[in-house]
Amino acid sequence: MLGGDYAPKECTLGVRDFISKNNQAHLVLIGNESDIQKDLSDSELSRCTIVHTSDAIDMHEHPVKAMKEKPNASMNIGFSMLAKGDVDAFVSAGNTGVMLVGAAHIIKTIDGVLRPTIPSIVPKVNGQFGIMCDVGINADCKPENLNQFATLAYQYTKEIMGIANPRVALLNIGEEEGKGNILAQATYPLLKENQHINFIGNIEGRDLFTDNYDVVICDGFTGNIVLKLCESIYDVVVKERNLSDEFLLRFNHQLYGGVPVLGINKPVVVGHGISDASSFSGMLQVAEKMISTNILGNVSRFL
Amino acid sequence: MLGGDYAPKECTLGVRDFISKNNQAHLVLIGNESDIQKDLSDSELSRCTIVHTSDAIDMHEHPVKAMKEKPNASMNIGFSMLAKGDVDAFVSAGNTGVMLVGAAHIIKTIDGVLRPTIPSIVPKVNGQFGIMCDVGINADCKPENLNQFATLAYQYTKEIMGIANPRVALLNIGEEEGKGNILAQATYPLLKENQHINFIGNIEGRDLFTDNYDVVICDGFTGNIVLKLCESIYDVVVKERNLSDEFLLRFNHQLYGGVPVLGINKPVVVGHGISDASSFSGMLQVAEKMISTNILGNVSRFL
Repeated sequence: MLGGDYAPKECTLGVRDFISKNNQAHLVLIGNESDIQKDLSDSELSRCTIVHTSDAIDMHEHPVKAMKEKPNASMNIGFSMLAKGDVDAFVSAGNTGVMLVGAAHIIKTIDGVLRPTIPSIVPKVNGQFGIMCDVGINADCKPENLNQFATLAYQYTKEIMGIANPRVALLNIGEEEGKGNILAQATYPLLKENQHINFIGNIEGRDLFTDNYDVVICDGFTGNIVLKLCESIYDVVVKERNLSDEFLLRFNHQLYGGVPVLGINKPVVVGHGISDASSFSGMLQVAEKMISTNILGNVSRFL
Repeated sequence: MLGGDYAPKECTLGVRDFISKNNQAHLVLIGNESDIQKDLSDSELSRCTIVHTSDAIDMHEHPVKAMKEKPNASMNIGFSMLAKGDVDAFVSAGNTGVMLVGAAHIIKTIDGVLRPTIPSIVPKVNGQFGIMCDVGINADCKPENLNQFATLAYQYTKEIMGIANPRVALLNIGEEEGKGNILAQATYPLLKENQHINFIGNIEGRDLFTDNYDVVICDGFTGNIVLKLCESIYDVVVKERNLSDEFLLRFNHQLYGGVPVLGINKPVVVGHGISDASSFSGMLQVAEKMISTNILGNVSRFL
């Protein structure tokens, strides 16, 4: 409840929205007790447990250092409760570095997973969304990494986004097998032989906004360049130039409720610093769905 | 005069436009003599020599195979005349593979150049343009390749685009030195020490449309993904969705007259298949400028 640029107000509004949409989950809210209490009704509070702390890691602190030096920071408490099993999922819009370090080093990767990854959402012209993976935490990848990202993102897209048998594509600079850089050339046959995904071949940069795929796999360097480019298109065209277009409006990353770290043992959902109430509600919904579908238990069978 | 989707009509119109803007260059037009003659006036024809052939390599032929089997194809004649010194530059919107193979194997790279490259134009929000290099012919790059692309693209941007002391940036996923994938990390110090460019550090995907740089260097895999993504934004937003915006309109690659192959011994300018009259005129202007500035002679001193 201390994470993100608009905490605690937008966190609390997100909690209220989530509670109105879900009648089962119990929420553990980590943050300033009086701030939280004053914005929630008694019936809403009956769905929550508040763990009080006013200690937070801010957005610009060094993740590892801050995690060591601030044991009572809300994010440290969250990871510790998740590790102990006091909660089943952890959601935060706080310092992304801390979320990643905590995910990898406190929650740890699923046995057999070489590296965790974070997917991102790509708006399509037809109103649907694609999932791109990786988008930055794995700048250098090996073919086996990309193949695992494909399995992880396939399961996420199927179980959490609700797309039946998602079409998995490899981001490349040509359509045929054999095209691309060394990494793409070596990854293609692994994806082709991966029995746990629905591989449909290569797609190119021009296909990203089309409905030719559901999941697109790439190294984190390429994915991050694409992601930031897309975000800047929104900033330039919609915010600076005031152009209103249904497709371009969906480049607003604030619309999306945060994404899970894939490949770790428990659900951890990471939000943007600028998360608003609907983002927080969305993140809680993703977390709840990851628990109720037991996606992580299922994923481990495929790796 | 047989190259591109709209040959010979748009080629001829491009020739007329170029002749009206330039009163020195003599043009050698390779193609169907009667087609060419009927669209040019006597005074225009006095500025041209026609080399007749009706043999062409089409867009989908295999470059190496077609070059061997069609010695009288217009592109083969062009490369052969350029190699012999019968012309000083060669311009075509024909099969891109043939243009690249001809450039590398008939005209050959400048001594010391590891790999030729092709730059691309990136529209900026402020109405200016950036140059991105490489955009696809070098899918896998070493740090030394990127460092040479920087020198080549710096000279091109300075001498041909007319930008004084162009700011050269490295495309990366973080601003500080040390960020990025292994390639970017290893390239940064080379660019920093390169005395023949004006290196300003890293830029990110979100900076591509800003005026924070003049030349951005990346491997051809990343560059090609970005290029095709940008082209698709134009197709989707402007062509399909009929959105008219001064910035987005400049994503129309038809606006740009083609780009030279950098790092080879003589000027070769490559056009898109969809080149129209203004593209052809632009390509001829680029070629003329490459000759008159002796850019290739100058570049070789910096490599």
